[in-house]
Order: sequence, then C-alpha cells, then structure tokens
Amino acid sequence: MNVSHTSAGATGLRLRRLGIDTYQQSVVYLRADAPLVRSEGFEAQSRLEVRHLLQPQRRVTATLNVVHTALLAPDEIGVSEAAWRALGGAEGDAMVAEHAPPLVSFGAIQSKIFGRPLGRDAAGAVVADIAAGRYSDIELAAMISACSGNRLDEAETHALTVAMIAAGQRLHWEGPVVADKHCVGGLPGNRTTLLVVPMVAACGLTIPKTSSRAITSPAGTADAMETLAPVALDLPALRRVVDRTGGCIAWGGAMQLSPVDDMLIRVERPLGLDSDGLLVASILSKKAAAGSTHVLIDIPVGRTAKVRSMEAAGRLAQRLVNVGRQLGMTVSVEMTDGEQPVGRGVGPALEAADALAVLQSQPDAPGDLRRRALLLAGYLLELCGKAAPGSGLVMASNALSSGAAWRKFQEICEAQGGMRTPPRAPYTRALCAAHAGRVAAVDNHALACAAKLAGAPKAPAAGLVFHAPLGTVVAVGQPLLTLHAESPGELAYAMAYAEHQEHLVTIVEAP
Amino acid sequence: MNVSHTSAGATGLRLRRLGIDTYQQSVVYLRADAPLVRSEGFEAQSRLEVRHLLQPQRRVTATLNVVHTALLAPDEIGVSEAAWRALGGAEGDAMVAEHAPPLVSFGAIQSKIFGRPLGRDAAGAVVADIAAGRYSDIELAAMISACSGNRLDEAETHALTVAMIAAGQRLHWEGPVVADKHCVGGLPGNRTTLLVVPMVAACGLTIPKTSSRAITSPAGTADAMETLAPVALDLPALRRVVDRTGGCIAWGGAMQLSPVDDMLIRVERPLGLDSDGLLVASILSKKAAAGSTHVLIDIPVGRTAKVRSMEAAGRLAQRLVNVGRQLGMTVSVEMTDGEQPVGRGVGPALEAADALAVLQSQPDAPGDLRRRALLLAGYLLELCGKAAPGSGLVMASNALSSGAAWRKFQEICEAQGGMRTPPRAPYTRALCAAHAGRVAAVDNHALACAAKLAGAPKAPAAGLVFHAPLGTVVAVGQPLLTLHAESPGELAYAMAYAEHQEHLVTIVEAP
Repeated sequence: MNVSHTSAGATGLRLRRLGIDTYQQSVVYLRADAPLVRSEGFEAQSRLEVRHLLQPQRRVTATLNVVHTALLAPDEIGVSEAAWRALGGAEGDAMVAEHAPPLVSFGAIQSKIFGRPLGRDAAGAVVADIAAGRYSDIELAAMISACSGNRLDEAETHALTVAMIAAGQRLHWEGPVVADKHCVGGLPGNRTTLLVVPMVAACGLTIPKTSSRAITSPAGTADAMETLAPVALDLPALRRVVDRTGGCIAWGGAMQLSPVDDMLIRVERPLGLDSDGLLVASILSKKAAAGSTHVLIDIPVGRTAKVRSMEAAGRLAQRLVNVGRQLGMTVSVEMTDGEQPVGRGVGPALEAADALAVLQSQPDAPGDLRRRALLLAGYLLELCGKAAPGSGLVMASNALSSGAAWRKFQEICEAQGGMRTPPRAPYTRALCAAHAGRVAAVDNHALACAAKLAGAPKAPAAGLVFHAPLGTVVAVGQPLLTLHAESPGELAYAMAYAEHQEHLVTIVEAP
Repeated sequence: MNVSHTSAGATGLRLRRLGIDTYQQSVVYLRADAPLVRSEGFEAQSRLEVRHLLQPQRRVTATLNVVHTALLAPDEIGVSEAAWRALGGAEGDAMVAEHAPPLVSFGAIQSKIFGRPLGRDAAGAVVADIAAGRYSDIELAAMISACSGNRLDEAETHALTVAMIAAGQRLHWEGPVVADKHCVGGLPGNRTTLLVVPMVAACGLTIPKTSSRAITSPAGTADAMETLAPVALDLPALRRVVDRTGGCIAWGGAMQLSPVDDMLIRVERPLGLDSDGLLVASILSKKAAAGSTHVLIDIPVGRTAKVRSMEAAGRLAQRLVNVGRQLGMTVSVEMTDGEQPVGRGVGPALEAADALAVLQSQPDAPGDLRRRALLLAGYLLELCGKAAPGSGLVMASNALSSGAAWRKFQEICEAQGGMRTPPRAPYTRALCAAHAGRVAAVDNHALACAAKLAGAPKAPAAGLVFHAPLGTVVAVGQPLLTLHAESPGELAYAMAYAEHQEHLVTIVEAP
C-alpha cells in the first residue's frame, strides 16, 4: 500500500551503519517499538523507501528487518552495507522511511509466468527497476525462474539485452573495428585472455578488454591480471591505456557496464538456474556496452564444464550470433574441448604465471594453453579482417614467437600502472596418486573447489598446480596436483577436501 | 560444496541472540574476520548448517550475513529470531557451523522450470526439505514461480497436497463424518465461521474448526474469535472442547497442520503469484490434516475479491473437488457474491460483534452476514447427510432462531476457556459522503487497507464499520464508514489514507 501522500513517514530517523553485509540486497533495521513502525504498519519483510530528509534524491529501496533488542535506539534506522553504499551520508544523518511504491514492472514478470511473452517496453521497465535496486531478492528469483528453462525466445532475449545495455554506461571507441573475446567459462585455468589480448594488439587490433572478478570460480581474468598490473581503471585511465597500446585487460566492475547483469548473476548462481536467453543477454549486453564490434566467444564443452553437450552448445551459439547481429555486432563462436583444465595453474597468481611462461616462450610453458590462445587469437584476427581467412593462426604465432606479444603485454601492464611479479604461496603440498595407471577423467568442479578452499581468489597466491592431464601415465606416489596456500590452515583444509574427492582425478589401469 | 567430512567447522562459537526479525528465513551473523569464515570459505549469502556442539540434533539451516563491525565478537555467532527459535538453547551456548549439505530436492524444481512434471517422490522430497527449513527465500520464490501460472496439473497438485499433509501433524476423530468449511477469502468481514460452526454443531455435526490468523487481511477468523474466547488450544484441549460440544473455533497455528503451507504463503503473498494448484494444495492439505471428511468451500467472486471471474472460480472448484476426492474427502464448492464486504465490521472485535448480533438475533444484526451464514450452514448440513437435500437451510434457520446456535456458541467459548466481551475502540471517526448519490462500487482492498492502518489486527478493537453497501442512497455528509482505533495517531493515519482513496466507495448520481 502506497501511503506516500501522508507525512507520517517524515519523522526523522538517525542513520546508523550496522556493518552487516547482506550481499547486494539492501536491508534496513528498525526497532519494533519505533513509533514509525506502528504508525506506518511496517512489518518484517516490508519493502521500504528510505531517503535523506534533506537530500531526498539520495534514496534506496530496502527490505525491513524488525529489531526487538537494544541493538538500535527507537529513533535509529540501521542499514546494511549495500544500503549504506547506496545512501551515502554519515552516521546520525536524518532519514525518512515510508512504504516503497508498488513495483509496477513486476506485473510483466507475473504475466511471463502465466505464459505471456515479455515485450520490449516491459523488458525495459523490468531492467530499469532492477538497476535502481527496486527488486527484492525473491522478486529477482521469480524473474530468473520465469526466464529460465529456455522460456525466452529470440525477440525477448534481444529486448532484455537492449534494456540491460541501456541500464549502464556505454563506451565508444574510434575506428570501425573493436575486437573482443569472451569465454562462457566453467574450466579451471584457461586464462587465454592474458595471451589473446597482447597477441592481437601486437597485430594492430584495438581490443579494450574488460573482465570480471571471480564469482564462483577460483579466479576471474581480472583477479589473475591484478597479480601482474593494476586493473581497477576508471574510464579516462582505460582510454589512455588503449590509446597508447591498442589494448588493455581491466576490471569491468568499476565501469558500470550492464550492471543489471551482475545483479542477476548473484541470484542465478545459488539457484543453479541457467537459460540461454539470460546467458546471451548477459554476455552480449556487456560486450555491446564495452563498445565491441567483433566478438569471438569460446564455449568449452565437456561433461563437467558449464556447457555439457554439442547440442546445447549449438543452440547457445545460434542465439549468440543472431542476437549479436540484431545489435549490430559480428559475433563468432568457437567450441573448444572442456574436459579438463587448460594450463597448469588454478588461482590468480598461478594462472598469471602460466600466461607469462607462454608469452616469454619458456620451454616448460603449458602447451595446451599456448595452443588454445593461438587458435582463438587466429580466429579473432580473421573475424576482424586483420588476417586473411586461414592465415590468422600464422599471424598470431608470429606475434608470439617474435616476442611482439610479450613486448605488447609489458607495454599494457606499464600503461595500466606498472608491471608486478605475481606472489608465490609460502605453503604448498602435493596430492599424490594412490595407485598407478592412466588419467581417464578430471572433475573440473572439484578442482575449482579445492583451489577455492586453499584460499583463491581472495589469497592471490593460493590455488593449485595441476600435473595430471588426461592420458598421463602415473606411478604410485606421483604428484597429481600441488596445493598452494597463504596459511597452513587453508592448506590443510583444502588437502582434506581433495583427499576425499574420489573423482577429482580418475586413474584407470594403464593398458 | 559439502565439506562436512572435515572438522574445521567444529570450533565452538558462542550463540548470541541479536533480536533481529528476518521473518521466517533463518539468518546467522558471523564476523568477517572470524577464523571460521576464512577457513570454511564462507561468504555473504552462504547457506550454513548451524548446530549445538553438545546437542547436534538441534540444528538449523540459515543464510549467512557477514558482519564488519564490533556488533559481534569474532567467536560469536549471531542469530535471527527464526534461527533462535529453531535452535533453542541459551546465550553463550557452544555452536558449530559448516556449509549446508547440497539441497538435492531443488533439482526437481529446476527440472520443473525446464518443463518436466513434478513427480510424487520429488514433491515429497521438496516439501520435506521446505518443512525442515532447508529452502532459502530465493529457492522458495523459484519453487513458487515454477508452480504458478497454472503449471501444476491435477496429478502434481495431488502429489504436493499429499506431501504437505505428511509434513505436519494429522488429527483423527471418531465417527465417519467430520464437517469443515473454508473461505478462499478476499472479502473484508465475512466472518461466517463464527456462525456456521455453532449452527451445524447445534444440529449434531462434529466440526473441529481450525482457522488462521490474518496474514495480509485486517482479521483472520482466529483473531476475531480470540476477542470472544481463547483460541491457542493445544491438541488435548482441542479434543476436550470437541468431545464436550461437538465443535470448536481454534487457531490452527499451534497444531502444525500442514506447516509448509504457511511457509509458502509467506513468499507467495509479496510476489502476488497465485496458482490454482498451490491454492488447492494449501486448502486441502490443511483440511485433510485436520481430519475433515466433508468440506464446504466458499469462493467469493467479485471484481476486487481474490477470485475475479466465474470462469476462474469454476476451474478452481473443479480442481478442489477432484483432488479432494482423491484424498478421500467429500468437497463441495459454493460460489458467493464477492463485490462488497459481508457484515458491517472489519477488524477482530468489530467482526466478532457482528457475529454476536446475529447469534443473539438482535434486530439490527447485519442481514447479509446472517443470510450467507445460513446458506453455508444449510449446504454443509446437506453435504454431511444431516439434512435431506433442500432442507438444510430450514434446519440451520431453526438452530439460529430457537437460540440453539447461540447456546452452542456460548458452550464452545466456555469449553475453550471462558467467554469474553470484545473490546471497544476508544477513538472513532466517520468518513462522510462528499456528495449525494447511490453507492455503485466498493473497493475491498482499499477498505482492508484502511482497517489495517487503523491498527487491525494487532489492535483487536481497531478496524472500521461499513455503513454503505451497494445500492445505498446517501446524502452529503452521511457517514460511509466509521474508523475505530486504539490510538489517536492510527486513527488520523487511517483517515488520511481513506480520504485519499477515490474509489473506496464509488457514489454515482441517484437515478
């Protein structure tokens, strides 16, 4: 019920930061015996609009938690960290709270649940309200459920993507070709971005790459790059780096490109729901907002990867290409082997070290990572018209073997604020083969979990080095992987986990 | 990730009640720098299983909120009110926390979202996990979204109903016929239960009626009855009352009849999602758990009621009757006029007063409430075979006019713990007609909101008395309704709201 016409909510409340991290959903806390709670008919879980008394444009929509103890004074309004960030201000600032206005756009989600398609205007209104923080977590969960199970058709996917682009910043670059790459994910390691960007930039392409930090994985590209150079660039800094070097590898989070995507991912992940439509909107909205014109998308396909069959990969690819075309982007999809990690390192610094080894053409550099990066760089060069069809791989190989890619990478790091040496973990321990044989399967999920328990990505040196790719013939006691940690406790904890995962590395009798 | 095989979570944490009401979802609070948070890889929104170190069977699944301030000590675990109730225990008790085990049953919800039907075993597993508090709010929202929009067929509805019955207590009564009635709701007032129960009990039926408190309305049947007699009876007390009088009007909440229904309603309401399947499972699981054999269901149909068309009412009725039959219950549906309130009072004590006036055959008793109660009682008497077809209304009328129903009601109140006089509100104020004419429409929602803003149901005397049913010819300044409140502030607040609702009562020029 919207009662904003009355002044009962205008009693000043004193702002109090409680330091509670409720993740992205804003929560406010009021005493059960606060006069406002009774006069407004507030209840636990009421959605409130809270604003500064003197600066009413600084406001947030939040869920109410009622407090029955002296945690708060009756005239205080406690706020969660997300609400504190959204409101700004200082402790003790005078605030007002009232019932949030009705969330009109949610009607389109209710309609979608009842089978009616999500129109263009409705998609715009839904995304604008999500961007403004007006959707509660359960409303987001309903929205995601309504769109999952392939319930979004191509027109709806396009409408959502357009709305998600409009809800954030959009970058513009000079020149007709702005290259980009993206990996759908699900494989540990596989840090090809750190190689593809300097390779294609060395060949003269413009590739202003923005990446995410880890959400549920042991490292995101931004986490790995951060062990080599600063990544939290603002827009002017990003432009300077790209103007000077042709490329960058920056963290996209500072740039508010398709912020709604991040808000949806936060609820999608714990629900384990995926949807081609939402995934396509997520990827393409980020790419379009970044100003990319030619995008190569890597879809690893494997039994424990994110995409598990060629059929599923084919459907996803078709949708990416079609919606990309409607947005004016040239999108190409490469399906790659997703049965095992790519490279040896899993974790920010260990993945960075793999990339450095390839760039420096070290003899022990991981060959699978090198091959995959060359393949993707070659395709991207062809997609962007920089290399003739069939000659991209040679061009990329030359950039690598000549040292041009390595020099370009150093240039980019210097331009981003100075190159760093990745940290090394003080504590390491090997997990060894319990019996001899041949490696027949690798559980990508379990490897990622072990690396996370060792401390990645928060502890940048933590993670693991994987020694046993498919087909490796191992003797009893031979190391399968080495865990790296920054504390003995985390090392022990990750080891206990890894030792109990029967399917982490499956070893069969060698023929 | 399930890491319960390690002992890292076994470091004792001290239990601390924070007094925060997060509604039914359990939340626990840990300091960001607590050793356990890092060693277990806990993050904001992680789902944890928390238990007493010495009594591990006392446990709860809860969502983590991370605390960055001195609100908690590093070795304390703060708990919300729901978690505190679920865990029991005392401040300072030693607790352990670890990652909650994977929620396997949610796979069936994901499958349902992808279009696969919810099987009987899957429905059982989902409901058992919800009953155990293992579903987070966003998981409940996904479950409800998956089942809404008429996506549940009859078999799925039946499976969910059976599972919901099994998740709670079930009452058993002697004798082959146990009568019950239920109203789908959505109309202010309409407190027919207080009349139907004594009428049919006076005619010799067994009717152990359990009712709910208000969820979003100004009064539930249990709230209204509580102004006349105690309603929070435990099972032995309920049996004594029914054995002695043949009926009761008790609060069902103390009896754990289909508790999952209550948990779903809590998330369904803010989402505004309805589903014939979930509604049928909700109603029939409660009735079957209460041991009812013959159930009359009142569906008010009106433009601002819960069910808005005869077509929708017909579909719902068919599903109720069919699923009821599969459960071995005889279910009959009566569709009634849902265009305006029934009776004059809206709010616990005011609705009780209406019922008393009818039972005592007072000359000014509301005729519409009297007629509707007689109609329903008559149907129920016929449905249960107590009255011959066509003679139920006469039998019910005799019970009322002879005083037998009034004596039976007093008996029931005495057996429930003693009859009370409903309180009267100290503050009242009339809302008057701004112009003359004839009442052409009434907004049930707005009336309910006004009664709630006046303090109902928390303030039992609060609410409103409605003077202007459809067709009433009013003069300028004639009272349309009188607000009742227990405080001057609430009265003013409700009045401000009512005065601004243009469509509360629509008055057209009289012909």
